[in-house]
Amino acid sequence: MKTFNIAILGCGTVGGGTAHILLKQERTLSARAGVPLALVKILDKFPESAAKRHAIPRTLFAGPENAAELSADELAAETKKILADPSIDLVVETVGGTADSLLETMTAALAAGKHLVTANKAMLAKHNARLFEVAQANGRAVGFEAAVCGAIPVIKGINECMTGDDITAVSGIMNGTSNYILSNMTKKGLSFAEALKGAQAMGYAEADPTLDINGGDAGHKLLILLKLLFGINATVGDFPVLGIDSVTAEDTAFAQEVGAVIKLICHAKREGDGVYATVRPMLVRRGNILSDIAGATNAVALTGANSDGNVFIGQGAGRLETGSAIVSDIVFIARHGKAALRDYPDQNLRILDFDHREMPYAVIFDTEDVPGITGLVTSAIGDQAINIDTVSHNLRAADAPGALFAITTKPCTMAQIKRAVSAAKKTNPRAFLAEPKIIPILH
Amino acid sequence: MKTFNIAILGCGTVGGGTAHILLKQERTLSARAGVPLALVKILDKFPESAAKRHAIPRTLFAGPENAAELSADELAAETKKILADPSIDLVVETVGGTADSLLETMTAALAAGKHLVTANKAMLAKHNARLFEVAQANGRAVGFEAAVCGAIPVIKGINECMTGDDITAVSGIMNGTSNYILSNMTKKGLSFAEALKGAQAMGYAEADPTLDINGGDAGHKLLILLKLLFGINATVGDFPVLGIDSVTAEDTAFAQEVGAVIKLICHAKREGDGVYATVRPMLVRRGNILSDIAGATNAVALTGANSDGNVFIGQGAGRLETGSAIVSDIVFIARHGKAALRDYPDQNLRILDFDHREMPYAVIFDTEDVPGITGLVTSAIGDQAINIDTVSHNLRAADAPGALFAITTKPCTMAQIKRAVSAAKKTNPRAFLAEPKIIPILH
Repeated sequence: MKTFNIAILGCGTVGGGTAHILLKQERTLSARAGVPLALVKILDKFPESAAKRHAIPRTLFAGPENAAELSADELAAETKKILADPSIDLVVETVGGTADSLLETMTAALAAGKHLVTANKAMLAKHNARLFEVAQANGRAVGFEAAVCGAIPVIKGINECMTGDDITAVSGIMNGTSNYILSNMTKKGLSFAEALKGAQAMGYAEADPTLDINGGDAGHKLLILLKLLFGINATVGDFPVLGIDSVTAEDTAFAQEVGAVIKLICHAKREGDGVYATVRPMLVRRGNILSDIAGATNAVALTGANSDGNVFIGQGAGRLETGSAIVSDIVFIARHGKAALRDYPDQNLRILDFDHREMPYAVIFDTEDVPGITGLVTSAIGDQAINIDTVSHNLRAADAPGALFAITTKPCTMAQIKRAVSAAKKTNPRAFLAEPKIIPILH
Repeated sequence: MKTFNIAILGCGTVGGGTAHILLKQERTLSARAGVPLALVKILDKFPESAAKRHAIPRTLFAGPENAAELSADELAAETKKILADPSIDLVVETVGGTADSLLETMTAALAAGKHLVTANKAMLAKHNARLFEVAQANGRAVGFEAAVCGAIPVIKGINECMTGDDITAVSGIMNGTSNYILSNMTKKGLSFAEALKGAQAMGYAEADPTLDINGGDAGHKLLILLKLLFGINATVGDFPVLGIDSVTAEDTAFAQEVGAVIKLICHAKREGDGVYATVRPMLVRRGNILSDIAGATNAVALTGANSDGNVFIGQGAGRLETGSAIVSDIVFIARHGKAALRDYPDQNLRILDFDHREMPYAVIFDTEDVPGITGLVTSAIGDQAINIDTVSHNLRAADAPGALFAITTKPCTMAQIKRAVSAAKKTNPRAFLAEPKIIPILH
């Protein structure tokens, strides 16, 4: 039987983990694939150190023998050689980034008749339409299980497993770093800055954690799910993405008071001919399994018309975790010869304005501490036909200036709340010390 | 493009749900499968009432026009016709039971070149080797997602998604009825009999709930997973299966005292060249996500060498829930042409004696209420080199006779504990009012 040959481009954390698993479990993986799998070539700028770090035979690496570092020209030449090698059936892209040259390499691999497996969520979020177009034109597959939530089989779970369902909504904790930070803020009453420092010290957050804490990384993943679940080709900016940097210790304390915890939630819900989509901190009620997901763990809850609901929980990052997701794509493609996106018969769903999504909300007010404030805001909310659920006490210390309190509502829209806030401000502009925070509540 | 034609044998709850989904979502399902799917024939003993109950066109049903009930001869003749019809590509078996005649129909369908999808866990637990043998000989697939945990994609999750991993253990809540009963015992302090009555009144338990409460149903599912995860062909009786009928209100109270809840757990763990397997009530510590699974919900936790751990949560039963699992198998087989069990290269794993599985345990003692008892049992336990973790106070009411108390241990084997109990009994035979209960603790 012909061997199914694999090349890996980029042998950092994830590429190295992938190589490690392919080499260690070659026999069982081949049995699962129904065809002998072989890792035949690895390309990395630093072959010496990559070989050592991941305990991979040095001979598997492309480039001049014994070279510690490959020049840009050597990298380009070796890439070309791999793409031109007809014996290679599948290329794993674990270089990362969204450089045009990388996109070119990925499409060239597909055009050369090779299957492609990638963990590159940023590239997919930006160029998935192009990649799938080239793949389809060449009858080749693009595997991207590793791009969303690491070891959790979200992609194949939706694309190959939950196909008997009609999935109408998704709510997920899809960024481990921000969940780790929020968990520690909740558990230890830390400020955001303190919790971020702790996460960096523990290696859960990068030196530059921008994409983790501003919601950008989670936004990339939601973009991919919007395509997968609803056939929507969205781009960054098509739906609101908020990060966790604005979450305060008072917010987490308030969440606990109403029996909830703050989580960064990737959320999408189909309604009529559209889909509401957002990434932002939400108050998740205890009782919802997402409220129990602590630390760097990820979780994705899918609501289906037929299955009621499914929740997948697991590790969203890590060398072997993400490597195992890449390997699962390799096995699937070697076994079935395809892993294409499913088709969407004439749905043409569009992204709806999240301001009109009906949910319960929490509104956190920072106001002057004078009589009449509660009446002012509750009246303004009532005037917009919003039912109030709870009104908290003042969370600010007695000797501190101003009042910090929160109101939770029954289901209404953010547009309604914004109108209420605007009316209250008009009535008494000086009462508000900060812009009220409006946070959706997930039951 | 040739249509992929489907016939359903048995249109009860699950068969009817399957038909409903196939008819309602025909266009999206066909798009997912990449080939037009069509439900062309349904066979049921009572076509009139089945058509009405599930809102299915009466014309899809096999047999004499307008017949309210088919005779045994008519059923047999119509079954034959379906198996002989070369236009039918796949047969769904939702008759249920383990009758020889049904097994014959299932193998005949495969031998006739049709794919088979079944929800029949009892049949698979008994005859999976035979079914897969015939399927392989005829190059056809057997889909059985619906046989284990309804809508949760456990089977394809393991077989098609987590293939980049090396799964070493599974712990699952795989019987909704018993979880519903245990949840209510815990939440409301009910006795087993009271909670069972409540479950029957709510429709969560059958009039004859034997297989649910004695662990038999969960045992069937674990048998299927042992085959899938470890390639083991086990049969009922190869591993210990205990039900929930022996769980008392005192047991659930004691569990809460040590920060745990009692769950019926399907458990298997590979060690060396063997696998420990059991179904039995366990104390699940708070912090383990399985402790949060309440009501009739199911959950399966898989431990992998690469992915660390994945948990799948969802609905294990129900008309559309189980129907959606069957439909997902149909889509998968229509799309990929196979859904066979993966191969196991020379593992030859055997089932190990659960008495030698090292875990923490709880031992619940029912003894005379006299001085010296605690010393007697703790000394006997210490003599077996078992470390004691906690000793509870006496849970029995002050005016009731005897003492009911529990000891939790650090990891040890049940064999050690049994030796300790036996030694204590020898020292003071009259001290023990009942056989001590030994319950594993899951962290």
